[in-house]
Amino acid sequence: MLAYQLVGTGGINDLRSAELPVPSPRRGQILIRMRAASLNFRDLLVAKGGYGAEMPVPIIPLSDGCGEVVAVGDDVTHFVVGDRACPTFSNNWTGGPVAAEHIPTSLGGFVDGVLAEYLVCDAAVAVKPPAHLSFEQAACLPCAGVTAWSALNGPRAVKAGETVLTLGTGGVSMFAVQFARAAGARVIATSSSDEKLAQLRALGADDTINYASHPDWEHEVLRLTDGRGVDHVVEIGGGGTLPKSIASTAVNGQVHLIGVLTSGQINPLSIMSWKTIRGILVGSRNDFEAMNRMIEVHRIEPVIDEVFEFDRAADAYRKLEAAKHVGKIVITA
Amino acid sequence: MLAYQLVGTGGINDLRSAELPVPSPRRGQILIRMRAASLNFRDLLVAKGGYGAEMPVPIIPLSDGCGEVVAVGDDVTHFVVGDRACPTFSNNWTGGPVAAEHIPTSLGGFVDGVLAEYLVCDAAVAVKPPAHLSFEQAACLPCAGVTAWSALNGPRAVKAGETVLTLGTGGVSMFAVQFARAAGARVIATSSSDEKLAQLRALGADDTINYASHPDWEHEVLRLTDGRGVDHVVEIGGGGTLPKSIASTAVNGQVHLIGVLTSGQINPLSIMSWKTIRGILVGSRNDFEAMNRMIEVHRIEPVIDEVFEFDRAADAYRKLEAAKHVGKIVITA
Amino acid sequence: MLAYQLVGTGGINDLRSAELPVPSPRRGQILIRMRAASLNFRDLLVAKGGYGAEMPVPIIPLSDGCGEVVAVGDDVTHFVVGDRACPTFSNNWTGGPVAAEHIPTSLGGFVDGVLAEYLVCDAAVAVKPPAHLSFEQAACLPCAGVTAWSALNGPRAVKAGETVLTLGTGGVSMFAVQFARAAGARVIATSSSDEKLAQLRALGADDTINYASHPDWEHEVLRLTDGRGVDHVVEIGGGGTLPKSIASTAVNGQVHLIGVLTSGQINPLSIMSWKTIRGILVGSRNDFEAMNRMIEVHRIEPVIDEVFEFDRAADAYRKLEAAKHVGKIVITA
Amino acid sequence: MLAYQLVGTGGINDLRSAELPVPSPRRGQILIRMRAASLNFRDLLVAKGGYGAEMPVPIIPLSDGCGEVVAVGDDVTHFVVGDRACPTFSNNWTGGPVAAEHIPTSLGGFVDGVLAEYLVCDAAVAVKPPAHLSFEQAACLPCAGVTAWSALNGPRAVKAGETVLTLGTGGVSMFAVQFARAAGARVIATSSSDEKLAQLRALGADDTINYASHPDWEHEVLRLTDGRGVDHVVEIGGGGTLPKSIASTAVNGQVHLIGVLTSGQINPLSIMSWKTIRGILVGSRNDFEAMNRMIEVHRIEPVIDEVFEFDRAADAYRKLEAAKHVGKIVITA
Repeated sequence: MLAYQLVGTGGINDLRSAELPVPSPRRGQILIRMRAASLNFRDLLVAKGGYGAEMPVPIIPLSDGCGEVVAVGDDVTHFVVGDRACPTFSNNWTGGPVAAEHIPTSLGGFVDGVLAEYLVCDAAVAVKPPAHLSFEQAACLPCAGVTAWSALNGPRAVKAGETVLTLGTGGVSMFAVQFARAAGARVIATSSSDEKLAQLRALGADDTINYASHPDWEHEVLRLTDGRGVDHVVEIGGGGTLPKSIASTAVNGQVHLIGVLTSGQINPLSIMSWKTIRGILVGSRNDFEAMNRMIEVHRIEPVIDEVFEFDRAADAYRKLEAAKHVGKIVITA
Repeated sequence: MLAYQLVGTGGINDLRSAELPVPSPRRGQILIRMRAASLNFRDLLVAKGGYGAEMPVPIIPLSDGCGEVVAVGDDVTHFVVGDRACPTFSNNWTGGPVAAEHIPTSLGGFVDGVLAEYLVCDAAVAVKPPAHLSFEQAACLPCAGVTAWSALNGPRAVKAGETVLTLGTGGVSMFAVQFARAAGARVIATSSSDEKLAQLRALGADDTINYASHPDWEHEVLRLTDGRGVDHVVEIGGGGTLPKSIASTAVNGQVHLIGVLTSGQINPLSIMSWKTIRGILVGSRNDFEAMNRMIEVHRIEPVIDEVFEFDRAADAYRKLEAAKHVGKIVITA
Repeated sequence: MLAYQLVGTGGINDLRSAELPVPSPRRGQILIRMRAASLNFRDLLVAKGGYGAEMPVPIIPLSDGCGEVVAVGDDVTHFVVGDRACPTFSNNWTGGPVAAEHIPTSLGGFVDGVLAEYLVCDAAVAVKPPAHLSFEQAACLPCAGVTAWSALNGPRAVKAGETVLTLGTGGVSMFAVQFARAAGARVIATSSSDEKLAQLRALGADDTINYASHPDWEHEVLRLTDGRGVDHVVEIGGGGTLPKSIASTAVNGQVHLIGVLTSGQINPLSIMSWKTIRGILVGSRNDFEAMNRMIEVHRIEPVIDEVFEFDRAADAYRKLEAAKHVGKIVITA
Repeated sequence: MLAYQLVGTGGINDLRSAELPVPSPRRGQILIRMRAASLNFRDLLVAKGGYGAEMPVPIIPLSDGCGEVVAVGDDVTHFVVGDRACPTFSNNWTGGPVAAEHIPTSLGGFVDGVLAEYLVCDAAVAVKPPAHLSFEQAACLPCAGVTAWSALNGPRAVKAGETVLTLGTGGVSMFAVQFARAAGARVIATSSSDEKLAQLRALGADDTINYASHPDWEHEVLRLTDGRGVDHVVEIGGGGTLPKSIASTAVNGQVHLIGVLTSGQINPLSIMSWKTIRGILVGSRNDFEAMNRMIEVHRIEPVIDEVFEFDRAADAYRKLEAAKHVGKIVITA
């Protein structure tokens, strides 16, 4: 089969195509003919060695993808040949509380990922995507979608009538706008571009803030909430936003911290007034399935910035690196 | 002031108008010039003695109302003259878990209620209604609205993508349809009238079932959910629906049991597969305020069946007794 | 290998010993040399056909057991030969919320159980028992222990300072006393025998009630709680206790309903004052592991009534049927 | 009446005794003859101006105290003359979620506190202390006790079998050891003194670490938990402990951040693996009452370091400042 591999941690240039044998499904596994994959910022980090020495090389990159089941192993009960399937981000987290063992098992980082014609995975960690989504759309869900879902559905899940703040127009943030709206929250979204702000409003954001024209955008958030602040921030961890996100948060509010690219420092005094910061790393198969039920009820469609053919995978990475996209960058397989 | 009093427990005929002194607000209290009140099935029960020997007589009936603050006592900080205000159902439950002491304190049942020109209540248990609602609309909220909110926002609150079943077109059920939709749930609603089912769909119900033409409507619920059942039932406790509601409930689902008119028996075996039945009695001031934030974000408008003038209060009771209404029956003051 | 099978649903007489081939572990599975099994009331029900037409016959009975891993299949990472292991009650519920698919998979009811020299199970649903327990003690945990744990650790888990009511001296109830005490609750326990009440107090019960001398024992519960009632009842569903359990429950309290032998009816009005009834069916592997951490910290030892040799399995069943035991009845293998 | 006032923010020297009129209880209020008060680190901060410009001066300091009800206003139902009573830390937070309005209302910081012969407070925010405690012991509860309770009883409350880390021997930490043990957790406690570590073990700590001899004490915590880390840290915010506390925390664990004296910075990357940091500020009257039920069941006695006579209040402050104490420093009134 055709596949891409990262042969080192030197960045996009270390992405090489390869001809590899098609894997076979064993007991409990399914073989998926991948049809589409999508990129996350995390994948750039992986390419540049940001996952550290534990990352095996060469490795097939990317965690987010969708395809069609073409073979099933023994004792597989939930999938038959012809079903569509997405793998989950962690290849061993079916449900229940996260544990240390679920972390070093992510596709395209610790084990081979989805940027290939075929993928074998345990049926126990595969899910059927919502029926109304194309392969390209469904390929956006496993990391970016589930992360946004987990942010809003923790121990104190978003409630209708609460206010959610999202930052920028990356994949997680676009899902966060859609999911927060679906859950009945008011959404305040930020971007540095008025054009993107218009896209955010079209997606459902109730209020938007241009952080280029309002560098102290936390004051705008407070103004829009009568000084109260927001109940949830889906904080993607870009340069230096965290202190402003905390300042934007209401008493008893939560900052859901996502970005592995997070930089800067937090002054702990800033959270004393009953504010909570939660680190988040995607979610389980159960989370993925609960998200899908919501996506189906609301017929939500992931926002795709651009779709690249399989042989232009490196261009897809470069578009991600340029950071001008809105929503997800997809590669077909 | 003009007021109505129940002078006995003989039903609607014991509802009498009276001229009573206007009460004065003491420390911590507000005086509200009531502008509208609304009826709940519970109020019929009260009139017929269903609240038992603890009910003082004569008593000003009704718990649901809205008016305007015309005087404030010492140390009142959250209200000023001119504010609109609704009292809460229990006159001593501000927030936190319910306790036995919160039960024998409901307006129009244990203490004087809102069917009068003036009401004094503690500011600690009064709330400001959503700004977009009229007095008549806001008068629908204290019991019926908060009950629907509490049903859907318990220890395992409704989540976007879950399915909620509502029964009939009474006040609580109409709110339940609106609130479940606002929270992103799929709603299945029942009625015995195709015309009312059309109203339910217009209100947001995704699917409807005519229980007259489908007496075994639990089978319809299962059919509409691929055999899975619903995650929540807002069960208003009418004649013999509870066993069907339980049968309509998914593994791990919840039946929120509301009606004080509940009859019949439950076979406990029917809930063994991880089903939960929760008794519900309205909610606290905090619940009321959380509901209002949701109502404001979604600009929800309570469904009013008919508005009666103050001097036709008995006719309003009779309309309630006829049980043909859709939504709430309101009396102006 | 030696094993017992139920060859029909005629009760204990249909329990027959058999010589069966030793199963082989496949990918993801472990082979356990069983050392001990234990009985639950449910196992009598199974023997008498109470599981209905879905029960395959012949079937190896019993769900609760412990043994030693003697072989592992491919890709098993958490177990090595020599480890001790217990299977979970449901052979496909690893963690996360219960779903319909987890119910028809219980050992000794829907699939072959543990009353045999060897058992193969998926490593994903096996757990390592607490180190301080013998095989006989660990064999008490999978159904009875996890059920008591699930009762007390639902969406509103027991908190230190709350009050828990337990009924009788069966396996689940004895665990419930121990686990409730470990969680810092006050425990009120019932029995019809003063001698057993003394055993319950020795196990940690703070207060005990002889329901033979106090047939209206709910009044005793209320007396012992200053009229308030208990926060949790671990209700095992024996003849007609449920209405009394509900009457013993505080406003906002919970009745955790366990017994598959439950009989009688509930008047729904009895739970209107914010009482909750939850049906419970054992729990997941994650629940089992969380329980084990608690058992280890508190060095809890299951209460064993009597240990029978493997060839006296029918006698063990008969002792269970006599219902005079205190704690668990164990069979060695 | 005799009282102390802080007449400025110059520290202990600004603590002056004064002769003030005895206040009168108005509607809904009780008059308490204070019998004992206790100090928290926060009170030193208040004395030194750490509460900022919002602090009124002069002000009667201290939040923690207990006394006897000597008069009640109109409409007080829960207290009669002769009852013992503690005020809550915030004079307007009865229950339910914390809100911004509950923060600037703490006794001895924003409004007059308990270091006086008499205190008037709303009955709605007063609680009856556990019957087995002396005035001196009960005076330790309102801030220090409730804070430790809130830390362990948030949205994901401590469960039996979890592990809790406490830091040092101040008032909150001593309560945290006792409360975590009562809730069935394993406790790891730190101190720089072997003698104090022995006291911690006597109080119930399962394991102790001398952070003077183990400056990298997070490694000891990981060693004691088989590399897993703890589920909860009750972090009192002293100099630079927070990064070590985070490093001591398990995947999915929580750091409950208490100290208003917190210094240093947090690297947000350190919490990415599903760790949560929660800022905590005492709790509501409902929290206080729930704590008291636990204290009663376990007959917990607060640890008192030393009791000072009323006229030696300044010496009590100085002992606190010296930071050599174990448990609480009390002043009688």
